[in-house]
Amino acid sequence: MKKAGILGGGQLGRMLLQSAANYPVETFVMESSRDCPAASLCHHFTVGNKADFEDVYHFGKNLDVITVEIENVNVEALEKLETEGVVVIPSCKALKIIKNKIFQKNHFKDNQTPTSDHLVVRSMEELKQNSSFFPAVQKLATGGYDGRGVALINSIDDVENGFDEDSILEKKINIKKELAVIVAVDRNMNYTSYPVTEMVFNNNLNLLDYQFCPADIDADIFTKATAVAEKSVLAFESPGLFAVELFLDINNNILVNEIAPRVHNSGHHTIEVSVCSQFDMLMRIMLDYPLGNTQTNCFSSLINIVGNAGISGNVVYSGIEDILKIPGCYIHIYGKSKVKPGRKMGHITIVGNNKEEVKNKTKDVKGKIFVKSSD
Amino acid sequence: MKKAGILGGGQLGRMLLQSAANYPVETFVMESSRDCPAASLCHHFTVGNKADFEDVYHFGKNLDVITVEIENVNVEALEKLETEGVVVIPSCKALKIIKNKIFQKNHFKDNQTPTSDHLVVRSMEELKQNSSFFPAVQKLATGGYDGRGVALINSIDDVENGFDEDSILEKKINIKKELAVIVAVDRNMNYTSYPVTEMVFNNNLNLLDYQFCPADIDADIFTKATAVAEKSVLAFESPGLFAVELFLDINNNILVNEIAPRVHNSGHHTIEVSVCSQFDMLMRIMLDYPLGNTQTNCFSSLINIVGNAGISGNVVYSGIEDILKIPGCYIHIYGKSKVKPGRKMGHITIVGNNKEEVKNKTKDVKGKIFVKSSD
Repeated sequence: MKKAGILGGGQLGRMLLQSAANYPVETFVMESSRDCPAASLCHHFTVGNKADFEDVYHFGKNLDVITVEIENVNVEALEKLETEGVVVIPSCKALKIIKNKIFQKNHFKDNQTPTSDHLVVRSMEELKQNSSFFPAVQKLATGGYDGRGVALINSIDDVENGFDEDSILEKKINIKKELAVIVAVDRNMNYTSYPVTEMVFNNNLNLLDYQFCPADIDADIFTKATAVAEKSVLAFESPGLFAVELFLDINNNILVNEIAPRVHNSGHHTIEVSVCSQFDMLMRIMLDYPLGNTQTNCFSSLINIVGNAGISGNVVYSGIEDILKIPGCYIHIYGKSKVKPGRKMGHITIVGNNKEEVKNKTKDVKGKIFVKSSD
Repeated sequence: MKKAGILGGGQLGRMLLQSAANYPVETFVMESSRDCPAASLCHHFTVGNKADFEDVYHFGKNLDVITVEIENVNVEALEKLETEGVVVIPSCKALKIIKNKIFQKNHFKDNQTPTSDHLVVRSMEELKQNSSFFPAVQKLATGGYDGRGVALINSIDDVENGFDEDSILEKKINIKKELAVIVAVDRNMNYTSYPVTEMVFNNNLNLLDYQFCPADIDADIFTKATAVAEKSVLAFESPGLFAVELFLDINNNILVNEIAPRVHNSGHHTIEVSVCSQFDMLMRIMLDYPLGNTQTNCFSSLINIVGNAGISGNVVYSGIEDILKIPGCYIHIYGKSKVKPGRKMGHITIVGNNKEEVKNKTKDVKGKIFVKSSD
C-alpha cells in the first residue's frame, strides 16, 4: 500500500483525506498542532513546522508521494526528497516558481501566458520611483495568503500602505469578472479541467460574495478561459492539481492573475457537482491512477463560512438545520475548534437545475448561518 | 459539538465517517481490533466487544447519539443508554425486533407488511415435522449475516443441512427479481426513500452478480416496491436509515424479505449518484438535521470486490488503474489489511446515462480487478 503525505492539516487536507479513504493508501499529515481539521482523518499525524527543513525532510523520507496544502513550505527539503525518489506533487520546480510571485510572474511572461503588466520592486523607495505605473497592485513576493500581502496603490498617496520588501507591482486592470479554472495534470502529462467558476463580489464591501459555476459568461469566453488556464498550467511541466485565477477585463481579454498548485477554495463545489471532485482527482494523481471525469450537469454556488470581525474563541454554529432544510444545500464544517475574524470555518454548496434558482437560494442562505464564539 | 458513536468499525462505519467529516461532530468508534476500516477516520477509537454489555455501555455513556453498523450488538446496554438520554438510532425497540428473525417476521405479519408465509421451528426435529411446508428456506433467528445462517430445504433430504436452533422456515417463493429500497426516517418521523435497486444474480453460481439502479422494472412495480418498503419501515416507529430487501415474485407481488436497520451494501451507489448519499443521510438523522435529497438522474451499477475462495492473507489489489480508466467507474477500497474468502474488500460503482452502457461496462469491469494475497 502506498504511503501518501500531506504537508498541512487544514480543511484542504481534511477534504483530501475524505477522498483518500476510497483508495488503498496509508495517509500521513504534518501540521504545527494536533488541533487541526485533518488530524482525525489520517493514519499517521506528525506535529512539525512546514517551513523547517528537518521537519519536512523527516516527515517525507519514508513516503512514496507527498503533496502540499499550502505553498509556504520548505521546498529545499522537498527537493532532497525528490532526488531520493519521493514523488513530490506538484514538482519542486513548479512549487519554487509558484511560491514566489516574482518568479511566477516572470514564468507567465516567458511562456506567453497572458497576464497583467508588472514591475519588480524591492523596497518602498522603488515603489515610489514607479509612480508612473500607478494605479497598481503591490503583492509580496512570498508569504502572502488569503488576501494578506496585497496592497492597492492607486496613487502616490497610497505608497505608505505598500511593502518595503521584494514584491511585484501589477498594473491595475479594469476587471469585468474574476474567474477560476481547476486544471488537473497526471504523472504522464495527460490533463483535464473543470468548468469555469466565477467569483461574484459584493461591490460595497469589496469582498467575495459567492462563487458560481459554470461561470455566467459567453461560450467563447468560457472556451478562451479554459484554454488559457490549461496552457498556463502545462507550462509548468508538472503533475498536480492547479487552480488558475483569471481576470476577464472590460475588453474581454483573459489574463492569468495567479496559480495555486493545489486543491483550492474555488473548486470545493466539485464535491457535489462532479462525480470526481478536485480532491478525488488529486488523490488519483498522487496514486498514479487515471484522471477522473470533470463534467458537471447542474448549476452551483458556493459560500464560504468565515469568522466575522470581533468574533474570537471556541466556535459555535447556528442555522445549520435551516440551511439543510433548503433543497440542494450542502454544508461542510472544517472542524476548527476556534473562530477568528476572517478565518475560513466551512462552506456551503448550493446545487440546482437553473441559474436563477441557485442565485436566489444563495441570497437566502447567506443570512441563515451564524458563527459565534462560546467564550 | 455533538458526540456521535458507531458500534462497529467496518466499511459501513468508514464510509459513514467520510460523511461525518462534513458536520460539526466528534466521532467515536468501537470495534474488536484497531486494525479495522474505520479506525483511522474517527476522533476516538475504542477496542471493545460489541456483544458485551459493559463494553457497549461504557463506550456509549458519554455520547449524545449512537448507531450500529451491524445488528448483532448488545441491545440491553443500548436500552440502558437510551433510558439515560443517549439517542440510539435505530431505536432499541426496532433493533430488538429486527435482530431476531422470528420477531421481525412476526412484526411484518402484525403490521400487514406483505412477506412470505413462515413457521417458527426451534429444532431439526421440528423442521422435519414440517415437511409439508417444503420447499422452504430456513433462517437462524439470530446471528446470521451476509448469507450465513441460511439453509435451502427443498425436500426432506435437505433437512440434515438445516439448523437445530431457533429459526424461521419461510415458504420458498418463485422470485422474478430481488429488489432493495433504502428508507430514511428522521427524528420527527419525516421520511424519504431512494430509488429502487435491483440485485442481478449470476444464475450459474447463484451469487450476486451486481446491483443496478434504478431497477429495471415497470413503473407500477417501482411505485409498489417503494410504497411497501416505506410502509414496512414506518411500522417500526423509529428514526434511522433502513435497507428493505424485497422479492418481486412471478405474479408481480412485492414481498418484504428482510430489513437491515442501518446503512447497507445495496445503497453504496448513492455515494456517486445522489448528492445526499445514504451515509450523509444517516449522519443528518443522527445530528437531527433535515433529510437530504435522494434523487438520481443517472443509471448505475455496483460490483462488490470480494475475496475469492483459496485467497487468504495480506491483501494486494491489481487492476485498479484499468478500472479507473473506464469513464464513469469509481472504486472504494475498504482498507482491510487481510483478505479472506468471501470477505467484502471494496466495491466499484459504475455510472452512466443509459442502461445498456452501464450494463455493458459492468461486464467489462468484472474481469479487471483482482484481489490477491502477498503471503
